[in-house]
Amino acid sequence: MKHLFGMAELERPQIERLLALAESFVELSRRPLRKAPTLRGKTIINLFFENSTRTRTSFEIAGKRLSADVINISAATSATKKGESLLDTGQTLAAMQPHVLVIRHGIAGCCQFLADYLPQTAIVNAGDGAHEHPTQVLTDLLTLRQHLGGVAGKTITMVGDIAHSRVARSHLIAANTMGYRLRLVAPKTLLPREVERYGCEVTHDFDAALAGSDVLYMLRVQQERLTSNFAFPSVREYHEAYGLNRRRLAMAGSDCVVLHPGPMNRGVEIATDVADGSQSRILDQVENGVAVRMAVLTTLCGGGD
Amino acid sequence: MKHLFGMAELERPQIERLLALAESFVELSRRPLRKAPTLRGKTIINLFFENSTRTRTSFEIAGKRLSADVINISAATSATKKGESLLDTGQTLAAMQPHVLVIRHGIAGCCQFLADYLPQTAIVNAGDGAHEHPTQVLTDLLTLRQHLGGVAGKTITMVGDIAHSRVARSHLIAANTMGYRLRLVAPKTLLPREVERYGCEVTHDFDAALAGSDVLYMLRVQQERLTSNFAFPSVREYHEAYGLNRRRLAMAGSDCVVLHPGPMNRGVEIATDVADGSQSRILDQVENGVAVRMAVLTTLCGGGD
Amino acid sequence: MKHLFGMAELERPQIERLLALAESFVELSRRPLRKAPTLRGKTIINLFFENSTRTRTSFEIAGKRLSADVINISAATSATKKGESLLDTGQTLAAMQPHVLVIRHGIAGCCQFLADYLPQTAIVNAGDGAHEHPTQVLTDLLTLRQHLGGVAGKTITMVGDIAHSRVARSHLIAANTMGYRLRLVAPKTLLPREVERYGCEVTHDFDAALAGSDVLYMLRVQQERLTSNFAFPSVREYHEAYGLNRRRLAMAGSDCVVLHPGPMNRGVEIATDVADGSQSRILDQVENGVAVRMAVLTTLCGGGD
Repeated sequence: MKHLFGMAELERPQIERLLALAESFVELSRRPLRKAPTLRGKTIINLFFENSTRTRTSFEIAGKRLSADVINISAATSATKKGESLLDTGQTLAAMQPHVLVIRHGIAGCCQFLADYLPQTAIVNAGDGAHEHPTQVLTDLLTLRQHLGGVAGKTITMVGDIAHSRVARSHLIAANTMGYRLRLVAPKTLLPREVERYGCEVTHDFDAALAGSDVLYMLRVQQERLTSNFAFPSVREYHEAYGLNRRRLAMAGSDCVVLHPGPMNRGVEIATDVADGSQSRILDQVENGVAVRMAVLTTLCGGGD
Repeated sequence: MKHLFGMAELERPQIERLLALAESFVELSRRPLRKAPTLRGKTIINLFFENSTRTRTSFEIAGKRLSADVINISAATSATKKGESLLDTGQTLAAMQPHVLVIRHGIAGCCQFLADYLPQTAIVNAGDGAHEHPTQVLTDLLTLRQHLGGVAGKTITMVGDIAHSRVARSHLIAANTMGYRLRLVAPKTLLPREVERYGCEVTHDFDAALAGSDVLYMLRVQQERLTSNFAFPSVREYHEAYGLNRRRLAMAGSDCVVLHPGPMNRGVEIATDVADGSQSRILDQVENGVAVRMAVLTTLCGGGD
Repeated sequence: MKHLFGMAELERPQIERLLALAESFVELSRRPLRKAPTLRGKTIINLFFENSTRTRTSFEIAGKRLSADVINISAATSATKKGESLLDTGQTLAAMQPHVLVIRHGIAGCCQFLADYLPQTAIVNAGDGAHEHPTQVLTDLLTLRQHLGGVAGKTITMVGDIAHSRVARSHLIAANTMGYRLRLVAPKTLLPREVERYGCEVTHDFDAALAGSDVLYMLRVQQERLTSNFAFPSVREYHEAYGLNRRRLAMAGSDCVVLHPGPMNRGVEIATDVADGSQSRILDQVENGVAVRMAVLTTLCGGGD
């Protein structure tokens, strides 16, 4: 494994190895001293063209906990503002000899594009446009392994802004690799074009999709999208149609696990009592996110065996 | 000591222990090699919702000098901008398993509020609204211990925007715990409501308050507050009435110590020759600030004995 | 060597020692484990009043690779915004006992100014106004040493916005110290006043300056300067007159080395095929930049022998 662009490149045994390694890092991160020398002498650059405190912090803690040197660069202060191209920024940073470049960028496919020009640098996709967000999906898989014993044969019902979600896209790919089913629930305006070609169940009726769901995966809905382009007169109306509340969770059953990639809009896609309820594994996702990134960084730096 | 919310929770022996520990860190910070392994394997997150280079840098150096992993998060890039609640931000970060969360926030009491929900994370208040700023006051106490031999029985005359000052509030509490007197000097508009209940001397006449002052503690005055809401036609007029100049310092006496929590408005609350003069301990405060934060972090991480 | 303000203070043997030390750090930065304990226990503050991802990241990686504690401060979040003077910011940071303060600021001479007041802190000029940028020039010298065997007796033809360039100014000084020739090529409006006193060749005709050039050093041209104050109706016209393209590079000869301090405006001062061509050493400059900064930091912290 030289890069991590997306779930599309990962085969099942690789995913299993990453999750097993991540499990050991969950354990490390609960010890009184949370530090291992695994990545000592390695340099990791977090290059974030979009703000994401959560993801950047998760990668930063992952790197530091393994003794790597971690450098953060945010778009707001980058040379991009002075008109430098993405490729020049990438080549410049690669010339400083980091081992890993973690990239969050608005353009789908930018990581593969850069990798062609940066032969000596491992690249991790921390979210590229509406394309992929593999470390989030690995995090979800780890969380479901802990709470459902695995995902094979399970049904994950994903609700919300599927169209703009890189998490959704990465899950659509991983579902095939790992043998789980995705059921998509969204209004037409928030579904991707040609959604049929993914070959999964699609519905506009959330209530009808609840029975048989092992996981309810609620996606963040950007409020500006709701009220401007799309057909919802108000946030409240969206919550009525597509928000997860106690009534719906009860219909899904008491074994159903609730996930959300965060940050949450409480009262929009998820009710507060569900977000904080006993079936929510949302904070486990966050904890596992650090461990998964530790596993990814370790593997890309040649460790992990 | 599980958290540091404010001076209100600290008893005198705890304060004395923190100051003694901080003294040893002053010494460490003057060595050629300024590093101890005390907090190795500990993760500290600086979560600043308000900008404060000085305080953030002080905590960051404190943590790094003790070998902790330090992660900085500023409001400008945080998920708060995407509508995430303070509690969700706190819970998300806590799920990443930091040992300590250092918080600067505009809302008074936010640290206690968060602590109720984050049972495994130690919280340090780095300034919450106009409520408390305990590490600043501990810094001041250490500085006065070095230069006056201690604060018991001393009189600290505090001048300026008492109403909006968390430093003032924390000193009002610490004065009772540690047995020193506070004399407050400010125009009516910059005094807190019901100032009488603090039981300390209050005056609008700076000149009359000088005699008997062991310490002149000048507070930063925000110029927008001076000229908009309050009764001063100009900065110059404020300086005439409430600024510390050489004449006033001479009236206070040559043993009187000058403090300021920074950043200073030279020519407003303090004249340049006084700020840089031989009675000023303002830069000692900055140096001691790092040592005090090292002591606080160490204590919260279970060390310090 | 107590500070690094500019090339003006460096004698030839000092420069040679820095370059030799930097060579060893180039080698270190190519090892699988890029880490040495050289600066363990040292604190370095990067204080950047102007954005420069490239330079800040280079210093940050340099410090971390040598095990120093590195703290970044950007103007956007600094107390300067609250009206604090540069001197107060400097004194405050110095009181926190860093070993080195790396400063990027818009005011020429600000490093020397600060150094007079901060007796215990080593200061590195990372670019001060249009004055000096010594670590960039040391980087260039290292690059030319690798690719030309040294600079003595060579001719560097520098093209573009000489007037506003601290890199140009530092090279004008270093040329005398190190015995190389500078040939300046620019329109009148982008030449410094009294350019004659530097005693080097000056021309407005790029084509005429190509023959005999060992190095073509292309400077970044800020597009707002081109089209507002200066006589170019368009970026394209500037490129015609002063851009480096394949035709011109062929005229200079196949041994001629192309340099650029970055970030590049492709299609303005340099054509893309030249920037990426076999004679370009632009990415070597970036790599060497980290090594040079490692050498400077080491020397200022008392190591390097």
